[in-house]
Amino acid sequence: MIGRHWTELDTPIVLVDLDRLERNIERMAALARRHGVALRPHVKTHKSIAIAQRQIAAGAVGLTTAKLDEAAVFANAGFGDLFIAYELVTGTKLERATALARRVKLSFGVDSPEGIDAAAASARQAGTTLRVRIEIDSGLHRCGVPPEGAAALAGRIAARPELELEGVFTHAGHAYAAGSAKELDRIGEEEAQSVLRAAQLIGSVQVVSVGNTPTATRTIAQPGVTEARPGNYVFYDGMQVALGAAGAADCALTVAATVISRPEPGRAVVDAGAKTLGLDRGAHGTSSLPNYGSLVGTEGAVVRLSEEHGVLQLPASSDLRVGEPVRILPNHACAVANLADAYTVLRADLVVDRWPIDAAGAVH
Amino acid sequence: MIGRHWTELDTPIVLVDLDRLERNIERMAALARRHGVALRPHVKTHKSIAIAQRQIAAGAVGLTTAKLDEAAVFANAGFGDLFIAYELVTGTKLERATALARRVKLSFGVDSPEGIDAAAASARQAGTTLRVRIEIDSGLHRCGVPPEGAAALAGRIAARPELELEGVFTHAGHAYAAGSAKELDRIGEEEAQSVLRAAQLIGSVQVVSVGNTPTATRTIAQPGVTEARPGNYVFYDGMQVALGAAGAADCALTVAATVISRPEPGRAVVDAGAKTLGLDRGAHGTSSLPNYGSLVGTEGAVVRLSEEHGVLQLPASSDLRVGEPVRILPNHACAVANLADAYTVLRADLVVDRWPIDAAGAVH
Repeated sequence: MIGRHWTELDTPIVLVDLDRLERNIERMAALARRHGVALRPHVKTHKSIAIAQRQIAAGAVGLTTAKLDEAAVFANAGFGDLFIAYELVTGTKLERATALARRVKLSFGVDSPEGIDAAAASARQAGTTLRVRIEIDSGLHRCGVPPEGAAALAGRIAARPELELEGVFTHAGHAYAAGSAKELDRIGEEEAQSVLRAAQLIGSVQVVSVGNTPTATRTIAQPGVTEARPGNYVFYDGMQVALGAAGAADCALTVAATVISRPEPGRAVVDAGAKTLGLDRGAHGTSSLPNYGSLVGTEGAVVRLSEEHGVLQLPASSDLRVGEPVRILPNHACAVANLADAYTVLRADLVVDRWPIDAAGAVH
Repeated sequence: MIGRHWTELDTPIVLVDLDRLERNIERMAALARRHGVALRPHVKTHKSIAIAQRQIAAGAVGLTTAKLDEAAVFANAGFGDLFIAYELVTGTKLERATALARRVKLSFGVDSPEGIDAAAASARQAGTTLRVRIEIDSGLHRCGVPPEGAAALAGRIAARPELELEGVFTHAGHAYAAGSAKELDRIGEEEAQSVLRAAQLIGSVQVVSVGNTPTATRTIAQPGVTEARPGNYVFYDGMQVALGAAGAADCALTVAATVISRPEPGRAVVDAGAKTLGLDRGAHGTSSLPNYGSLVGTEGAVVRLSEEHGVLQLPASSDLRVGEPVRILPNHACAVANLADAYTVLRADLVVDRWPIDAAGAVH
């Protein structure tokens, strides 16, 4: 496959433009460096050892994962500093986390008395300690406590010698619903202030961590923030372009598909459906985008998705033919990566490598 | 894991109730038998050899797949009669299909002159013949030609000795948007009439094939229909219940998840997100359902999905606690299966088996 042009590949297939990927990685690393903020990129976006290695080489201090399974994959690959931005609350999970914490520097999220007690019990039983961070709700209203709730949880942690409080963290995922740059400014400000306020109320914590691609340029510049955990920035995608967080020329991940049917002038059907492109039309199940992806290099959009079919709306004058390849910019790169098993890596449209999606299926 | 209760399992995890699965398989088989219609179930729903074996044992004549990769998986597992309900139009795909057709009875879809010519060229080059079916558009407006376009394609196929016309097929996927039983009646009637009309215009074809779970009871009863290809009926799901095609007690596939956060009385967060439950709120990217899944056995629904988080809306009186397991009926079982790598099989809530999702990732 090496050396072939993307138009010659069997489809559907997930393409990564290496020049763009490297530029995105370097740009975010430079931003963090400039502000003296530690970068701990979220790998749930790419689930790839090859990409994580490039992030570390560019200066990242460690990695963020969503799931314990992901942390295990990256620990096994030699990454030694991991934060699971997720609450681990069951004995099964905590027992695994305790074992993993013996091999690498590991921390994970807590946001409830029950979670703290369960973590302490598992650590005690294993005769070891666990490192935790308190999740702060900065407006997404998913997990986390408001800043004012942080001190009570910190007190509970302090009373348990098996636990070490490493810091506070938040994810302002509601930034994905922002309608303007001004709203992103406000959300970024609140995101940073929420963890700064929590840290202040607790007294002293080592890590004050924000995490979000759309607000990264705002939050990283805030004095007092010590760490940032953006994920999507390695690829960007249709959602980030719509938010103004990236330009179309920054998007590193696309999907190659083939026209399999051409029933009328304004309609074509391609062999990439929801099982390849995902059904995202905005983050967190919102529908802020008008379609399911747009064609690259020519006019047209994916206006309907079945599981294995994508229906394109085209200008009536389009001369796209059955058998022709097209390239689609997806709305949500993380979802596309999660559905695939490998990246086909290009430079100047020619295949230079193939990277497995190492943590595919890592849902536990 | 065998013998354990579902509440003891690490989550998120996809559960299949074997009693319900067997009952669903037998009921559809009995319906087809009663009307003398061949049943060729669509395996894109489950992608599982263990389930396909049960469908064949119940009387199915063969299997339907969406993709060539799926057909290859089932051919390698010993299934000898396969129909790919999909247009194969590139040399790469057709070369593989030609090789596969030497080992098993295989046919696939055509709906364009270009597709027919490409298939004929590949068969000629390999010195063999290929079996095709013409796809008829019965109202979904995805692939396919209207019934009136079938004769021209049949003529083109007849002029190519490398191709054998096996029949006509349709998928009335727009049935998923039906608002009433009456509308399902109408769509089922049109679905059957479209292929019957196409067959009549062609003159004589061996196979007149319909395929859809919501309309199956309607189309299978139509005189002249020779084959049906429902897929989802093995599991059913929230969409089928909303359509009235199944009752909640028929649904065989659920997702077990754990409460990881409990920020307020009416809200809980579970560890199953879009990467487990999918983002479907209706078929083909429609949004006919109000949420992303509902709790089984207690009041509550998944009202928001992030990639790894599901946000539940609960009655304010709910006593659901951090660490507790819940069971979720997903909107779209096919999407959930596509995101998983195995089924945990239960009888009376106890694990009796674990089946791999054999054709996971089979997108080509």
